[in-house]
Amino acid sequence: MLCLVKATDPVWVEVALNNLDALLIDHAHCEIKAATNALSLASRAIDGRMAEQLAALAEEEVRHFRQVLDELGRRGLRLGMPLPDTYAAELRTIAHRTRPTGRSPRETLLDRLLIGALIEARSCERFRLLADALAVRGERTLATFYEDLFASEARHYRTLYDLAVEAIGNEERTRERLAELAWEEARLNARLGVEAAVHG
Amino acid sequence: MLCLVKATDPVWVEVALNNLDALLIDHAHCEIKAATNALSLASRAIDGRMAEQLAALAEEEVRHFRQVLDELGRRGLRLGMPLPDTYAAELRTIAHRTRPTGRSPRETLLDRLLIGALIEARSCERFRLLADALAVRGERTLATFYEDLFASEARHYRTLYDLAVEAIGNEERTRERLAELAWEEARLNARLGVEAAVHG
Repeated sequence: MLCLVKATDPVWVEVALNNLDALLIDHAHCEIKAATNALSLASRAIDGRMAEQLAALAEEEVRHFRQVLDELGRRGLRLGMPLPDTYAAELRTIAHRTRPTGRSPRETLLDRLLIGALIEARSCERFRLLADALAVRGERTLATFYEDLFASEARHYRTLYDLAVEAIGNEERTRERLAELAWEEARLNARLGVEAAVHG
Repeated sequence: MLCLVKATDPVWVEVALNNLDALLIDHAHCEIKAATNALSLASRAIDGRMAEQLAALAEEEVRHFRQVLDELGRRGLRLGMPLPDTYAAELRTIAHRTRPTGRSPRETLLDRLLIGALIEARSCERFRLLADALAVRGERTLATFYEDLFASEARHYRTLYDLAVEAIGNEERTRERLAELAWEEARLNARLGVEAAVHG
C-alpha cells in the first residue's frame, strides 16, 4: 500500500469498529491536524505554486473535518479536546534524529512533507480496511464515506510526495529518505500497538 | 465600527498602501491564523452546532487565504514565515490578566471567542479603509477584493460574538466583557503604532 513497509495488524479493524465513536472523534482531530499542518507548511513552501497546493490541501482537510463533525453530530458525540498525538510527535522526533548532519532547511522541509505523506498513506490504508469491514457489517453510508476518504488520502499522499521531490529537487534522495522514514513508521506502529485511533 | 472603541489612525492607510506587498503578506498570515484558531476553538466548542459553525468559519478563512495567495502570486511575492504576532499575543495576555478570579473554562472560551471577534472587527474596519483608498487610487480589482472581505469580516465578527453569548449563556456578561476587551484593544493599538500590517 503506497510507501508503507508493514500492513496494519488485522486486529486494528476489530478494535476500531468496536469503538467506532472513539475512532470517529480521533479521526475528526486528525483532519484538524492535517489542515493545520498544511497551512503551516504553506509558509515554508519554496514557491507560490507549492504554497497554493498546500492551501488547497488544507481546504480539503477542513471539508473532511466538517464531514466527520456531521457524523459525530448524527451520533450525538462531542468532539472535545484532542488526546496527545504520540504517533505524529514520535515521527517528527525520529525524523529529526535520523536527519543527515549539515542538514539544510530544505532537508527539514523534505522531512515534514514526507512525514505528511506517510501519515496520509497510513490513513489511506486504514480507511480501506474500515470501508471494507463497514460494508460487511451493512453500514453502507459510513462504508461509502471511508471509501471516498480512502481515495482522497491516496491523492494527498501523492501530492505531498511530489511536493517533497520539488522541495529537494532530487527524486532519488526523496525516495531514499521516504524508504528510511517508512521503516521507522513501521517500527513505531508496532511499538504503539493497536488502539481505536486512525494512527493508534 | 462594530465594537471598536477607537478608530484606526488615518496614517495607517497611507503606510499600508505605500507598503502594499508587506501588507498582503501579513494579510495572508492573518487568514492562516484565523483558520487555525477557528479549528482549535472547534475542539473547545460546547456543542456540535458551535463546532460546526467554527469549522465553517475555518473553511472560509482558508478560502480567503487562497485568494490572498493568488494576489501574492500575481505580484511575484513569496509568503515566507510569519513575523511574530504581537497584537494577538498581547490581546491573549491582557485577557488572561484581566479575567475574573475563579474563572471557569467557559470564561476562557468566552475570552477566546471575543478576542477572535475583536480581531475580525479591526480587520473589518481596516479593510473598509483599504477598499476606499484603493478605489480612489483606481486599483479597482483589489478595492473590490477588500470590499468583499470587509463584508465577510463583519459577518465573522457577528458569528464569534453570537458564539461567545452561547458559550457563557449570558448576553449581558458577554457585552460587558467585550467592552472591557475593546478598551484594552484600543490601548494596545495606540501602543503598537502604525505598521504595514492588518493589525499593526
